[in-house]
Amino acid sequence: MQTVAFDALKAFIAGAFVKLGLPENDAATVAALMAQADLQGSDGHGVSRLPQYARRIRAGGFNIKPNIRVVQEQASTALVNGDNGMGHLVMSRAAEIAIEKARATGIGWVNSQFSNHAGPASLYASMPLAHDMIGLYFAVGNANHLPPWGGLSMLLSTNPVAAAIPAGEEKPIVLDMATTVAAYGKVKTKALRGEMMPVGWMIDRAGQPLTDPTRAEEGMLLPLGGMEAGYKGYGLALIIGLLAGTLGGAAMGKDVVDFNHDDDSVTNTGQAICAISIAAFGDVQTFKSAVDTLVRDIGGSEKIPGVERILIPGQRSDETRIARRRDGIPIAPALMEGLDQLAGELGMKTLGA
Amino acid sequence: MQTVAFDALKAFIAGAFVKLGLPENDAATVAALMAQADLQGSDGHGVSRLPQYARRIRAGGFNIKPNIRVVQEQASTALVNGDNGMGHLVMSRAAEIAIEKARATGIGWVNSQFSNHAGPASLYASMPLAHDMIGLYFAVGNANHLPPWGGLSMLLSTNPVAAAIPAGEEKPIVLDMATTVAAYGKVKTKALRGEMMPVGWMIDRAGQPLTDPTRAEEGMLLPLGGMEAGYKGYGLALIIGLLAGTLGGAAMGKDVVDFNHDDDSVTNTGQAICAISIAAFGDVQTFKSAVDTLVRDIGGSEKIPGVERILIPGQRSDETRIARRRDGIPIAPALMEGLDQLAGELGMKTLGA
Repeated sequence: MQTVAFDALKAFIAGAFVKLGLPENDAATVAALMAQADLQGSDGHGVSRLPQYARRIRAGGFNIKPNIRVVQEQASTALVNGDNGMGHLVMSRAAEIAIEKARATGIGWVNSQFSNHAGPASLYASMPLAHDMIGLYFAVGNANHLPPWGGLSMLLSTNPVAAAIPAGEEKPIVLDMATTVAAYGKVKTKALRGEMMPVGWMIDRAGQPLTDPTRAEEGMLLPLGGMEAGYKGYGLALIIGLLAGTLGGAAMGKDVVDFNHDDDSVTNTGQAICAISIAAFGDVQTFKSAVDTLVRDIGGSEKIPGVERILIPGQRSDETRIARRRDGIPIAPALMEGLDQLAGELGMKTLGA
Repeated sequence: MQTVAFDALKAFIAGAFVKLGLPENDAATVAALMAQADLQGSDGHGVSRLPQYARRIRAGGFNIKPNIRVVQEQASTALVNGDNGMGHLVMSRAAEIAIEKARATGIGWVNSQFSNHAGPASLYASMPLAHDMIGLYFAVGNANHLPPWGGLSMLLSTNPVAAAIPAGEEKPIVLDMATTVAAYGKVKTKALRGEMMPVGWMIDRAGQPLTDPTRAEEGMLLPLGGMEAGYKGYGLALIIGLLAGTLGGAAMGKDVVDFNHDDDSVTNTGQAICAISIAAFGDVQTFKSAVDTLVRDIGGSEKIPGVERILIPGQRSDETRIARRRDGIPIAPALMEGLDQLAGELGMKTLGA
C-alpha cells in the first residue's frame, strides 16, 4: 500500500480546502486535525472523509465562512453556535473556551449547535491535556443506525464518548468509543474487504444476527452490551445524545440528518466538551503519579493464558502515531484514486506525486 | 413474601442507626435514602445492607459522627472530605454543593474522598432534577471484581455511572448502570436463588465462561461489551474510577478495600457528582419539550417481533416505586430473619411486628 508522510498529507488536505473556498487558517486547522486522525489510526475519520466533505462544500451543505460565536454563557458554561461551519472548527473553538473556563472556575462545559461532523472524539477530549486538565467529549453521531432496545425505529446514533486523563511519565489515558458494539465505519470496512461480520455486531429486523456487511442497510447496529446487556449501551447512547444534542438545542432523535446520504441539508450537529482542572482538586503531581502507578499496575497485571499484553486505552493509537510518523500513513488504493480525482478537479498536484 | 410499608421501613432503619449511635438527623437521612433504594427496586442497596452497615459501625469501620467538610474549592468545583462517614451523608452534601455551584456558574462538579458506600448511584444523580438540572454521578465500587481486559489481576470494580435528565410531562430519564455486564449483586442473587448465571456474565481464570454463581470467587465479572467488546466496558470502568477516585485523592486500583470482607479499614471511597443547569444553555421549557418528544418517539418505536414494549431508562424503577408504595416493599425471609436478629440485639421492635 502507498504511504504518505504526515506533513504531506496535512498540506494536501489544507490545499484542497483552500481550493474549495475555506480561509487559509481554517483550512489549516481542519487539515491538521484530519491528518492527526490518520496518524493515530482513526482511518475512518481522516483523509478518507475528504471527498465527502468536498462534495458537501460544493453542494452548499457546509458554510465555508461561518461566524462561529458564543450565543449564551455563564462563568463555567457556554453554548457555541457553529453557523453550520465544519465541526473541526467549531469544536476546536469550543475546546479553547472550555479550557479557559476550567482555568478560571475549575471546570468548563461547552455545547455546540449548528456544528457538523468533527472527526475522532479523542482529538477534542485530548485538547485539555496540555493544560493539566481532564477532557470529556460527547457527540451526536451523524446518522441514526441504532434503534432503542427492542425497537426497530432508527432514533439513535452510535453517539461516541471520549475521555482523556493526563499521566506523569506514562502516556495519557485516552478512551474513545462508540456506544455500539461496533462503529458503523467498521461495518463499511468489512464490506470493502469482502469479509463477514462477527455475530453480535448487527441484527436484522426480526432480531436475528446479521453478518453480511453488504446487507447492513437492512439491519441495525447492536448497542454496547450486545444481546445480553444492550439496554446499557442503548441507555448510554441516549444520555450522550441528550448531553451533546438536546442540551444545546442541536438535533437529536428523529431530527438527526444522515449526512452520508444528504450533502446539502443543515445537520445542526451537537457536541459537548468538558475540561476539568486537576489543580482544582489537589496537587497535580500527586494526581499524575497516581495515574502512573495505576497504568503500571494495569500493564503489569497477570494475564489470561494466551493474552500477549494488557492495553491501556489510547496505547494502540499512540503506537500507531509513532509508527506512522516514522513509516508514513498508508492510503488504500481506492481512496488514493478518489483523492487523485479530487486533486484533478481542483487543479492540484496529486497526493502521491 | 412479607411486605413492609415505605414509612415503616424508613422508621425501622432510622431507629436502628440511632441505636447504633448516629445523630438523629443523620440516621434519618441515611434511612430515607436506603428506603428509597428499596422502594425503586434497588434491593441490593437498601435495607439488605443494614446488617453489614451495623457490623461495620460496631467494628469502628464507619465514623458515626463525621466532620464532613469542603477541603478545596473553586467557583464550580469542590472536594469534600467525608471523614469516613456513611457515603449517603457525604454524597447528599456533595450533591447540595454541586447544585448550588451550578446555579451560580452553570455547572458544579464535586468529588468526595474518605467517603463510603452510598447505595444506588441513581439517587444522587436524581437530586439535581428538582432544580431543572441534569445530574451525573460516578463512583468507585467498593470491591474489585474486574480485571483489566485480558488480565487476571483484580484492579477495577464495577464502577457505576448514573445520569438523570429532566423531562416536562414525561418522567425524567434516569440511567444507572454498572460498567460490567452484570453487577456483582446480581451474581449473589443468583447464588441465593440456586440458579445458574447466563454465559457472558463471568469468566474463570482460564478465560472460559463461568456460570455457577457459587464459584463466583474463582472468577471475574466481564466488563460491559462481553467477549466481543469488553475492552470498552473496561475502558469505561477505568475512566469512571479515575474521575470518581483518583481525581479526589480517593482509593482506586489496588488501594480499593473490599468492604464485603473487611469491616474496619477506612475505605477512602471516592465518588463524583456533577449538576448541569439547563437554563445555562437555553430555555428550560424548550429543553423539557424536546425530552418529552424524544421519550414519546422512543416509546412509540416500531418493535422487534415478540418485544412487548420499549423501555426508557428509569421507567421500570418508576413503576416499581408506584407499585411498592401501594403494595408495600417485599422483604425476603432470610433478610427478615437477619433484621429481626438485629432488632433483638439493639432492643428494638422487629420490622414485621
